[in-house]
Amino acid sequence: MKTILVVGIGTGSAEQLTVAAVAALNRADVLFVPEKGTPKADLADVRRTIIKRFVTRPEVRQIGYAVPRRDAGNPDYGQGVDDWHAMLAEIFSWLISDVPENGVGAFLVWGDPGLYDSTLRILARVPEPVRVEVVPGITAVQALTAAHGIALNRIGEPVLITTGRKLGPVETDTVVMLDGQQAFLRADPDLEIFWGAYLGSPDQLLISGRLGDVAVEIAATRDEARARHGWIMDTYLLRKAR
Amino acid sequence: MKTILVVGIGTGSAEQLTVAAVAALNRADVLFVPEKGTPKADLADVRRTIIKRFVTRPEVRQIGYAVPRRDAGNPDYGQGVDDWHAMLAEIFSWLISDVPENGVGAFLVWGDPGLYDSTLRILARVPEPVRVEVVPGITAVQALTAAHGIALNRIGEPVLITTGRKLGPVETDTVVMLDGQQAFLRADPDLEIFWGAYLGSPDQLLISGRLGDVAVEIAATRDEARARHGWIMDTYLLRKAR
Repeated sequence: MKTILVVGIGTGSAEQLTVAAVAALNRADVLFVPEKGTPKADLADVRRTIIKRFVTRPEVRQIGYAVPRRDAGNPDYGQGVDDWHAMLAEIFSWLISDVPENGVGAFLVWGDPGLYDSTLRILARVPEPVRVEVVPGITAVQALTAAHGIALNRIGEPVLITTGRKLGPVETDTVVMLDGQQAFLRADPDLEIFWGAYLGSPDQLLISGRLGDVAVEIAATRDEARARHGWIMDTYLLRKAR
Repeated sequence: MKTILVVGIGTGSAEQLTVAAVAALNRADVLFVPEKGTPKADLADVRRTIIKRFVTRPEVRQIGYAVPRRDAGNPDYGQGVDDWHAMLAEIFSWLISDVPENGVGAFLVWGDPGLYDSTLRILARVPEPVRVEVVPGITAVQALTAAHGIALNRIGEPVLITTGRKLGPVETDTVVMLDGQQAFLRADPDLEIFWGAYLGSPDQLLISGRLGDVAVEIAATRDEARARHGWIMDTYLLRKAR
Protein backbone atom coordinates (compact mmCIF):
# COMPACT_ATOMS: atom_id res chain seq x y z
CA MET A 1 0.00 0.00 0.00
CA LYS A 2 1.13 3.57 -0.67
CA THR A 3 1.63 6.04 2.20
CA ILE A 4 0.42 9.59 1.86
CA LEU A 5 1.89 12.10 4.31
CA VAL A 6 -0.16 15.20 5.03
CA VAL A 7 2.44 17.56 6.40
CA GLY A 8 1.54 20.81 8.15
CA ILE A 9 4.14 23.40 7.15
CA GLY A 10 3.04 26.09 9.58
CA THR A 11 2.26 29.61 8.57
CA GLY A 12 4.23 32.49 7.13
CA SER A 13 7.77 31.21 6.78
CA ALA A 14 9.86 28.10 6.28
CA GLU A 15 11.09 28.39 9.89
CA GLN A 16 7.64 27.39 11.19
CA LEU A 17 8.22 23.82 10.00
CA THR A 18 8.80 21.30 12.80
CA VAL A 19 11.73 18.91 12.91
CA ALA A 20 9.19 16.07 12.49
CA ALA A 21 7.83 17.74 9.34
CA VAL A 22 11.34 18.04 7.89
CA ALA A 23 11.87 14.32 8.56
CA ALA A 24 8.49 13.50 6.97
CA LEU A 25 9.26 15.46 3.79
CA ASN A 26 12.50 13.52 3.52
CA ARG A 27 10.62 10.22 3.57
CA ALA A 28 8.69 11.18 0.43
CA ASP A 29 9.39 9.81 -3.02
CA VAL A 30 7.02 12.38 -4.48
CA LEU A 31 6.09 15.87 -3.24
CA PHE A 32 2.81 17.34 -4.43
CA VAL A 33 3.04 21.10 -4.90
CA PRO A 34 -0.13 23.10 -5.52
CA GLU A 35 0.17 25.86 -8.08
CA LYS A 36 -2.73 28.18 -7.50
CA GLY A 37 -1.76 30.54 -10.28
CA THR A 38 -0.68 34.09 -9.57
CA PRO A 39 -2.72 35.37 -6.61
CA LYS A 40 -1.08 33.49 -3.74
CA ALA A 41 2.38 33.35 -5.32
CA ASP A 42 3.97 34.22 -1.95
CA LEU A 43 2.57 30.97 -0.51
CA ALA A 44 3.96 28.93 -3.40
CA ASP A 45 7.32 30.63 -2.76
CA VAL A 46 7.29 29.46 0.87
CA ARG A 47 6.66 25.87 -0.28
CA ARG A 48 9.52 26.07 -2.76
CA THR A 49 11.81 27.56 -0.10
CA ILE A 50 10.91 24.74 2.28
CA ILE A 51 11.66 22.05 -0.30
CA LYS A 52 14.91 23.69 -1.37
CA ARG A 53 16.11 24.28 2.17
CA PHE A 54 15.02 21.11 3.96
CA VAL A 55 14.53 18.27 1.46
CA THR A 56 17.89 16.57 1.05
CA ARG A 57 16.86 13.37 -0.81
CA PRO A 58 18.37 13.88 -4.27
CA GLU A 59 15.96 11.52 -6.06
CA VAL A 60 12.75 13.16 -4.79
CA ARG A 61 10.23 14.16 -7.48
CA GLN A 62 8.03 17.25 -7.36
CA ILE A 63 4.67 17.17 -9.09
CA GLY A 64 2.85 20.46 -9.48
CA TYR A 65 -0.90 20.56 -9.80
CA ALA A 66 -3.45 23.27 -10.46
CA VAL A 67 -6.05 23.79 -7.74
CA PRO A 68 -9.49 24.40 -9.26
CA ARG A 69 -11.46 27.30 -7.86
CA ARG A 70 -14.46 26.63 -5.65
CA ASP A 71 -17.68 27.94 -7.19
CA ALA A 72 -18.28 30.71 -4.63
CA GLY A 73 -21.40 31.64 -6.59
CA ASN A 74 -23.20 28.45 -5.57
CA PRO A 75 -25.95 29.59 -3.16
CA ASP A 76 -25.73 26.20 -1.38
CA TYR A 77 -22.39 26.50 0.48
CA GLY A 78 -22.30 22.80 1.41
CA GLN A 79 -23.00 21.68 -2.16
CA GLY A 80 -20.41 24.09 -3.55
CA VAL A 81 -17.76 22.66 -1.20
CA ASP A 82 -18.82 19.09 -1.99
CA ASP A 83 -18.51 19.62 -5.76
CA TRP A 84 -15.11 21.23 -5.25
CA HIS A 85 -13.88 18.32 -3.12
CA ALA A 86 -15.07 15.85 -5.76
CA MET A 87 -12.96 17.64 -8.39
CA LEU A 88 -9.96 17.69 -6.08
CA ALA A 89 -10.37 13.99 -5.27
CA GLU A 90 -9.96 13.23 -8.97
CA ILE A 91 -6.80 15.33 -9.08
CA PHE A 92 -5.46 13.65 -5.90
CA SER A 93 -6.21 10.24 -7.40
CA TRP A 94 -4.15 11.15 -10.45
CA LEU A 95 -1.31 12.48 -8.23
CA ILE A 96 -1.27 9.31 -6.12
CA SER A 97 -1.04 7.15 -9.25
CA ASP A 98 2.43 8.66 -9.67
CA VAL A 99 3.63 7.34 -6.28
CA PRO A 100 5.61 4.12 -6.68
CA GLU A 101 4.10 0.91 -5.22
CA ASN A 102 4.74 0.88 -1.41
CA GLY A 103 6.18 4.36 -1.87
CA VAL A 104 5.49 7.63 -0.10
CA GLY A 105 3.84 10.80 -1.38
CA ALA A 106 3.51 14.03 0.61
CA PHE A 107 1.18 17.01 0.56
CA LEU A 108 2.51 20.26 2.06
CA VAL A 109 -0.41 21.86 3.89
CA TRP A 110 -0.38 25.50 4.98
CA GLY A 111 -0.91 25.76 8.76
CA ASP A 112 -2.13 22.49 10.31
CA PRO A 113 -3.95 19.74 8.38
CA GLY A 114 -6.62 19.65 11.12
CA LEU A 115 -7.78 23.27 11.07
CA TYR A 116 -9.91 24.59 8.20
CA ASP A 117 -8.09 22.47 5.65
CA SER A 118 -9.71 19.89 3.38
CA THR A 119 -6.78 17.67 2.39
CA LEU A 120 -7.81 14.84 4.77
CA ARG A 121 -11.44 14.95 3.64
CA ILE A 122 -10.45 14.90 -0.02
CA LEU A 123 -8.02 12.00 0.53
CA ALA A 124 -10.89 10.04 2.14
CA ARG A 125 -12.74 10.31 -1.20
CA VAL A 126 -9.89 8.90 -3.29
CA PRO A 127 -10.93 5.38 -4.41
CA GLU A 128 -7.47 3.78 -4.08
CA PRO A 129 -6.85 2.69 -0.48
CA VAL A 130 -3.78 4.47 0.95
CA ARG A 131 -2.24 4.77 4.40
CA VAL A 132 -2.55 8.40 5.55
CA GLU A 133 -0.20 9.91 8.15
CA VAL A 134 -0.62 13.45 9.48
CA VAL A 135 2.18 15.70 10.74
CA PRO A 136 0.93 18.71 12.72
CA GLY A 137 1.90 22.29 11.87
CA ILE A 138 1.69 25.72 13.51
CA THR A 139 -1.67 27.37 12.81
CA ALA A 140 -2.47 31.03 12.20
CA VAL A 141 -4.14 31.00 15.65
CA GLN A 142 -0.81 30.31 17.33
CA ALA A 143 1.02 32.75 15.06
CA LEU A 144 -1.58 35.41 15.98
CA THR A 145 -1.26 35.10 19.76
CA ALA A 146 2.55 34.75 19.57
CA ALA A 147 2.83 37.92 17.47
CA HIS A 148 0.63 39.85 19.91
CA GLY A 149 2.43 38.33 22.91
CA ILE A 150 -0.86 37.22 24.48
CA ALA A 151 -2.43 34.00 25.67
CA LEU A 152 -5.30 32.70 23.55
CA ASN A 153 -7.48 31.87 26.56
CA ARG A 154 -8.15 33.63 29.87
CA ILE A 155 -7.29 31.59 32.95
CA GLY A 156 -9.25 28.33 32.78
CA GLU A 157 -11.71 29.82 30.25
CA PRO A 158 -12.85 28.40 26.89
CA VAL A 159 -12.09 29.70 23.39
CA LEU A 160 -14.25 29.36 20.29
CA ILE A 161 -12.66 29.06 16.84
CA THR A 162 -15.04 29.98 14.05
CA THR A 163 -15.38 31.55 10.61
CA GLY A 164 -16.50 35.02 9.55
CA ARG A 165 -19.63 33.37 8.15
CA LYS A 166 -20.55 31.84 11.53
CA LEU A 167 -19.58 34.70 13.84
CA GLY A 168 -22.44 35.54 16.19
CA PRO A 169 -22.61 37.66 19.36
CA VAL A 170 -19.32 37.18 21.24
CA GLU A 171 -19.97 35.63 24.65
CA THR A 172 -16.87 33.36 24.67
CA ASP A 173 -13.43 34.59 23.59
CA THR A 174 -13.51 33.92 19.84
CA VAL A 175 -10.95 33.48 17.08
CA VAL A 176 -12.26 34.22 13.60
CA MET A 177 -10.64 32.65 10.54
CA LEU A 178 -11.52 32.63 6.83
CA ASP A 179 -13.29 35.95 7.13
CA GLY A 180 -13.79 37.30 3.63
CA GLN A 181 -16.71 39.41 4.83
CA GLN A 182 -14.98 41.46 7.54
CA ALA A 183 -17.47 40.19 10.08
CA PHE A 184 -15.72 42.21 12.80
CA LEU A 185 -17.39 45.34 11.39
CA ARG A 186 -20.73 44.00 12.70
CA ALA A 187 -19.45 43.02 16.18
CA ASP A 188 -19.90 44.91 19.46
CA PRO A 189 -17.53 47.95 19.33
CA ASP A 190 -16.70 47.50 23.02
CA LEU A 191 -14.96 44.18 22.34
CA GLU A 192 -11.18 43.95 22.26
CA ILE A 193 -9.71 42.80 18.95
CA PHE A 194 -6.27 41.33 18.22
CA TRP A 195 -5.93 41.25 14.44
CA GLY A 196 -3.15 39.91 12.23
CA ALA A 197 -2.51 39.27 8.53
CA TYR A 198 0.28 37.41 6.70
CA LEU A 199 1.10 36.07 10.17
CA GLY A 200 4.61 34.77 10.71
CA SER A 201 5.85 36.23 7.42
CA PRO A 202 8.02 39.31 6.81
CA ASP A 203 4.83 41.07 5.64
CA GLN A 204 3.02 40.47 8.95
CA LEU A 205 0.53 43.18 9.95
CA LEU A 206 -0.82 43.56 13.51
CA ILE A 207 -3.48 45.84 14.96
CA SER A 208 -5.11 45.58 18.38
CA GLY A 209 -7.34 47.67 20.59
CA ARG A 210 -10.98 48.44 21.35
CA LEU A 211 -12.86 47.26 18.26
CA GLY A 212 -14.78 50.54 17.90
CA ASP A 213 -11.47 52.44 17.89
CA VAL A 214 -9.56 50.28 15.39
CA ALA A 215 -12.17 48.64 13.10
CA VAL A 216 -11.88 51.30 10.39
CA GLU A 217 -8.07 51.15 10.53
CA ILE A 218 -8.18 47.36 10.19
CA ALA A 219 -10.58 47.52 7.24
CA ALA A 220 -8.42 50.10 5.46
CA THR A 221 -5.15 48.26 6.20
CA ARG A 222 -6.75 45.04 4.97
CA ASP A 223 -7.96 46.58 1.69
CA GLU A 224 -4.64 48.24 0.99
CA ALA A 225 -2.63 45.06 1.75
CA ARG A 226 -4.91 42.87 -0.33
CA ALA A 227 -4.57 45.21 -3.28
CA ARG A 228 -0.78 45.19 -2.93
CA HIS A 229 -0.33 41.39 -2.48
CA GLY A 230 -3.25 40.27 -4.64
CA TRP A 231 -4.49 38.17 -1.68
CA ILE A 232 -4.85 38.31 2.09
CA MET A 233 -5.09 35.79 4.91
CA ASP A 234 -6.03 37.34 8.22
CA THR A 235 -7.18 36.09 11.60
CA TYR A 236 -8.35 37.78 14.77
CA LEU A 237 -9.31 37.24 18.38
CA LEU A 238 -12.37 39.00 19.78
CA ARG A 239 -13.00 39.13 23.52
CA LYS A 240 -14.80 41.18 26.10
CA ALA A 241 -12.60 43.77 27.77
CA ARG A 242 -11.88 43.17 31.46
CA MET B 1 16.71 45.84 28.31
CA LYS B 2 16.73 42.04 28.67
CA THR B 3 14.84 39.84 26.20
CA ILE B 4 12.85 36.87 27.45
CA LEU B 5 11.93 34.27 24.86
CA VAL B 6 8.89 32.13 25.59
CA VAL B 7 9.44 29.15 23.33
CA GLY B 8 6.74 26.58 22.60
CA ILE B 9 8.43 23.19 22.37
CA GLY B 10 5.41 21.27 21.12
CA THR B 11 4.13 18.14 22.73
CA GLY B 12 5.46 14.65 23.20
CA SER B 13 8.87 14.62 21.58
CA ALA B 14 11.82 16.78 20.65
CA GLU B 15 10.86 16.44 16.96
CA GLN B 16 7.81 18.66 17.51
CA LEU B 17 10.08 21.68 17.89
CA THR B 18 9.95 24.13 14.97
CA VAL B 19 13.02 25.40 13.15
CA ALA B 20 12.19 28.87 14.53
CA ALA B 21 12.14 27.46 18.07
CA VAL B 22 15.56 25.85 17.54
CA ALA B 23 16.89 29.22 16.34
CA ALA B 24 15.32 30.98 19.34
CA LEU B 25 16.88 28.59 21.86
CA ASN B 26 20.24 29.26 20.26
CA ARG B 27 19.83 33.02 20.87
CA ALA B 28 19.58 32.46 24.61
CA ASP B 29 22.37 33.19 27.07
CA VAL B 30 20.38 31.43 29.78
CA LEU B 31 17.82 28.60 29.52
CA PHE B 32 15.34 28.22 32.36
CA VAL B 33 14.48 24.59 33.01
CA PRO B 34 11.63 23.72 35.37
CA GLU B 35 12.26 20.77 37.65
CA LYS B 36 8.88 19.65 38.85
CA GLY B 37 10.27 16.82 40.94
CA THR B 38 9.55 13.20 40.15
CA PRO B 39 5.98 12.99 38.80
CA LYS B 40 6.44 14.46 35.31
CA ALA B 41 10.03 13.26 34.90
CA ASP B 42 9.29 12.26 31.28
CA LEU B 43 8.53 15.89 30.45
CA ALA B 44 11.79 17.07 32.03
CA ASP B 45 13.55 14.41 29.93
CA VAL B 46 12.08 15.85 26.72
CA ARG B 47 13.35 19.32 27.68
CA ARG B 48 16.83 17.93 28.37
CA THR B 49 16.79 16.01 25.06
CA ILE B 50 15.81 19.19 23.21
CA ILE B 51 18.64 21.19 24.78
CA LYS B 52 21.21 18.47 24.22
CA ARG B 53 20.14 17.86 20.62
CA PHE B 54 19.44 21.36 19.35
CA VAL B 55 21.29 23.95 21.45
CA THR B 56 24.72 24.36 19.93
CA ARG B 57 25.94 27.54 21.73
CA PRO B 58 28.72 26.21 23.96
CA GLU B 59 28.56 29.05 26.50
CA VAL B 60 24.79 28.75 27.20
CA ARG B 61 23.84 28.40 30.88
CA GLN B 62 21.00 26.27 32.19
CA ILE B 63 19.25 27.32 35.38
CA GLY B 64 16.91 24.82 36.97
CA TYR B 65 14.06 25.96 39.17
CA ALA B 66 11.48 24.22 41.30
CA VAL B 67 7.85 24.87 40.35
CA PRO B 68 5.69 25.33 43.46
CA ARG B 69 2.43 23.41 43.56
CA ARG B 70 -0.84 25.27 43.13
CA ASP B 71 -3.05 24.99 46.22
CA ALA B 72 -5.76 22.86 44.59
CA GLY B 73 -7.53 22.86 47.98
CA ASN B 74 -8.39 26.57 47.69
CA PRO B 75 -12.18 26.63 47.15
CA ASP B 76 -11.77 29.90 45.18
CA TYR B 77 -10.18 28.66 41.91
CA GLY B 78 -9.32 32.16 40.69
CA GLN B 79 -7.69 33.14 43.99
CA GLY B 80 -5.74 29.86 44.10
CA VAL B 81 -4.34 30.52 40.61
CA ASP B 82 -3.60 34.14 41.48
CA ASP B 83 -1.60 33.19 44.60
CA TRP B 84 0.28 30.58 42.60
CA HIS B 85 1.16 33.08 39.85
CA ALA B 86 2.39 35.55 42.48
CA MET B 87 4.78 32.90 43.83
CA LEU B 88 5.96 32.06 40.31
CA ALA B 89 6.47 35.75 39.47
CA GLU B 90 8.96 35.96 42.36
CA ILE B 91 10.79 32.92 41.04
CA PHE B 92 10.80 34.34 37.48
CA SER B 93 12.12 37.66 38.81
CA TRP B 94 15.01 35.80 40.45
CA LEU B 95 15.67 33.83 37.24
CA ILE B 96 15.69 36.97 35.11
CA SER B 97 18.19 38.62 37.46
CA ASP B 98 20.65 35.98 36.20
CA VAL B 99 20.31 37.13 32.57
CA PRO B 100 23.18 39.45 31.59
CA GLU B 101 22.34 43.09 30.80
CA ASN B 102 20.89 43.28 27.21
CA GLY B 103 21.08 39.47 27.20
CA VAL B 104 18.52 36.82 26.36
CA GLY B 105 16.80 34.29 28.61
CA ALA B 106 14.44 31.55 27.37
CA PHE B 107 11.62 29.55 28.90
CA LEU B 108 10.80 26.20 27.26
CA VAL B 109 7.02 25.86 27.34
CA TRP B 110 5.25 22.54 26.74
CA GLY B 111 2.82 22.85 23.81
CA ASP B 112 2.18 26.46 22.78
CA PRO B 113 2.65 29.47 25.09
CA GLY B 114 -0.83 30.73 24.11
CA LEU B 115 -2.94 27.72 25.09
CA TYR B 116 -3.60 26.93 28.75
CA ASP B 117 -0.15 28.07 29.81
CA SER B 118 0.60 30.80 32.33
CA THR B 119 4.16 31.81 31.46
CA LEU B 120 3.10 35.02 29.67
CA ARG B 121 0.76 36.05 32.50
CA ILE B 122 3.43 35.42 35.11
CA LEU B 123 6.05 37.36 33.13
CA ALA B 124 3.63 40.31 33.01
CA ARG B 125 3.76 40.38 36.85
CA VAL B 126 7.57 40.53 37.05
CA PRO B 127 8.49 44.08 38.20
CA GLU B 128 11.62 44.44 36.00
CA PRO B 129 10.64 45.60 32.48
CA VAL B 130 11.73 43.02 29.88
CA ARG B 131 11.09 42.54 26.18
CA VAL B 132 9.03 39.36 25.71
CA GLU B 133 9.05 37.39 22.44
CA VAL B 134 6.84 34.34 21.86
CA VAL B 135 7.66 31.42 19.57
CA PRO B 136 4.65 29.20 18.79
CA GLY B 137 4.64 25.45 19.37
CA ILE B 138 2.48 22.48 18.41
CA THR B 139 -0.39 21.99 20.88
CA ALA B 140 -1.95 18.78 22.16
CA VAL B 141 -5.01 19.70 20.07
CA GLN B 142 -3.00 19.39 16.85
CA ALA B 143 -1.23 16.25 18.09
CA LEU B 144 -4.65 14.73 18.89
CA THR B 145 -6.21 15.28 15.48
CA ALA B 146 -3.00 14.30 13.66
CA ALA B 147 -2.77 11.03 15.61
CA HIS B 148 -6.41 10.20 14.83
CA GLY B 149 -5.99 11.32 11.22
CA ILE B 150 -9.02 13.62 11.44
CA ALA B 151 -9.80 17.28 10.90
CA LEU B 152 -10.55 19.28 14.06
CA ASN B 153 -13.53 21.05 12.53
CA ARG B 154 -16.32 19.97 10.19
CA ILE B 155 -16.52 21.89 6.92
CA GLY B 156 -16.88 25.57 7.77
CA GLU B 157 -18.06 24.77 11.33
CA PRO B 158 -16.77 26.16 14.64
CA VAL B 159 -14.82 24.35 17.38
CA LEU B 160 -14.82 25.10 21.10
CA ILE B 161 -11.70 24.52 23.20
CA THR B 162 -12.48 24.20 26.89
CA THR B 163 -11.52 22.50 30.15
CA GLY B 164 -13.04 19.54 31.97
CA ARG B 165 -14.25 22.00 34.60
CA LYS B 166 -16.18 24.07 32.04
CA LEU B 167 -17.56 21.28 29.84
CA GLY B 168 -21.31 21.69 29.37
CA PRO B 169 -23.77 20.06 26.95
CA VAL B 170 -21.96 19.58 23.62
CA GLU B 171 -23.68 21.59 20.88
CA THR B 172 -20.50 22.66 19.08
CA ASP B 173 -17.62 20.23 18.35
CA THR B 174 -15.56 20.54 21.54
CA VAL B 175 -11.97 19.81 22.54
CA VAL B 176 -11.48 19.23 26.27
CA MET B 177 -8.11 19.85 27.89
CA LEU B 178 -6.91 19.82 31.52
CA ASP B 179 -9.59 17.35 32.49
CA GLY B 180 -8.65 15.92 35.85
CA GLN B 181 -12.27 15.01 36.53
CA GLN B 182 -12.99 12.79 33.52
CA ALA B 183 -15.83 15.09 32.50
CA PHE B 184 -16.52 12.84 29.49
CA LEU B 185 -18.18 10.36 31.84
CA ARG B 186 -21.03 12.86 32.32
CA ALA B 187 -21.47 13.67 28.60
CA ASP B 188 -24.11 12.36 26.19
CA PRO B 189 -23.22 8.70 25.38
CA ASP B 190 -24.29 9.19 21.74
CA LEU B 191 -21.45 11.65 21.14
CA GLU B 192 -18.32 10.58 19.24
CA ILE B 193 -15.08 10.84 21.21
CA PHE B 194 -11.49 10.98 19.93
CA TRP B 195 -9.28 10.60 23.00
CA GLY B 196 -5.50 10.69 23.34
CA ALA B 197 -2.90 10.70 26.10
CA TYR B 198 0.87 11.35 26.08
CA LEU B 199 0.20 12.65 22.58
CA GLY B 200 3.16 12.73 20.19
CA SER B 201 5.32 10.63 22.52
CA PRO B 202 6.30 6.96 22.22
CA ASP B 203 3.78 6.27 25.03
CA GLN B 204 0.87 7.75 23.05
CA LEU B 205 -2.54 6.18 23.73
CA LEU B 206 -5.53 6.62 21.42
CA ILE B 207 -9.15 5.52 21.74
CA SER B 208 -12.10 6.63 19.63
CA GLY B 209 -15.70 5.63 19.10
CA ARG B 210 -19.22 6.22 20.36
CA LEU B 211 -18.74 7.67 23.85
CA GLY B 212 -21.16 5.21 25.45
CA ASP B 213 -19.19 2.30 23.95
CA VAL B 214 -15.69 3.45 24.91
CA ALA B 215 -16.05 5.65 28.03
CA VAL B 216 -15.32 2.79 30.45
CA GLU B 217 -12.32 1.67 28.39
CA ILE B 218 -10.95 5.23 28.35
CA ALA B 219 -11.41 5.59 32.13
CA ALA B 220 -9.68 2.27 32.79
CA THR B 221 -6.83 2.98 30.32
CA ARG B 222 -6.40 6.40 31.87
CA ASP B 223 -6.20 5.06 35.44
CA GLU B 224 -3.76 2.32 34.52
CA ALA B 225 -1.50 4.68 32.53
CA ARG B 226 -1.50 7.32 35.26
CA ALA B 227 -0.52 4.72 37.84
CA ARG B 228 2.31 3.49 35.62
CA HIS B 229 3.72 6.93 34.63
CA GLY B 230 2.89 8.77 37.84
CA TRP B 231 1.09 11.44 35.75
CA ILE B 232 -1.15 11.80 32.74
CA MET B 233 -1.92 14.51 30.19
CA ASP B 234 -4.87 13.70 27.99
CA THR B 235 -7.08 15.59 25.57
CA TYR B 236 -10.17 14.70 23.62
CA LEU B 237 -12.60 15.86 20.96
CA LEU B 238 -16.34 15.38 21.49
CA ARG B 239 -18.80 15.84 18.65
CA LYS B 240 -22.24 14.79 17.56
CA ALA B 241 -22.22 11.77 15.26
CA ARG B 242 -23.28 12.41 11.66
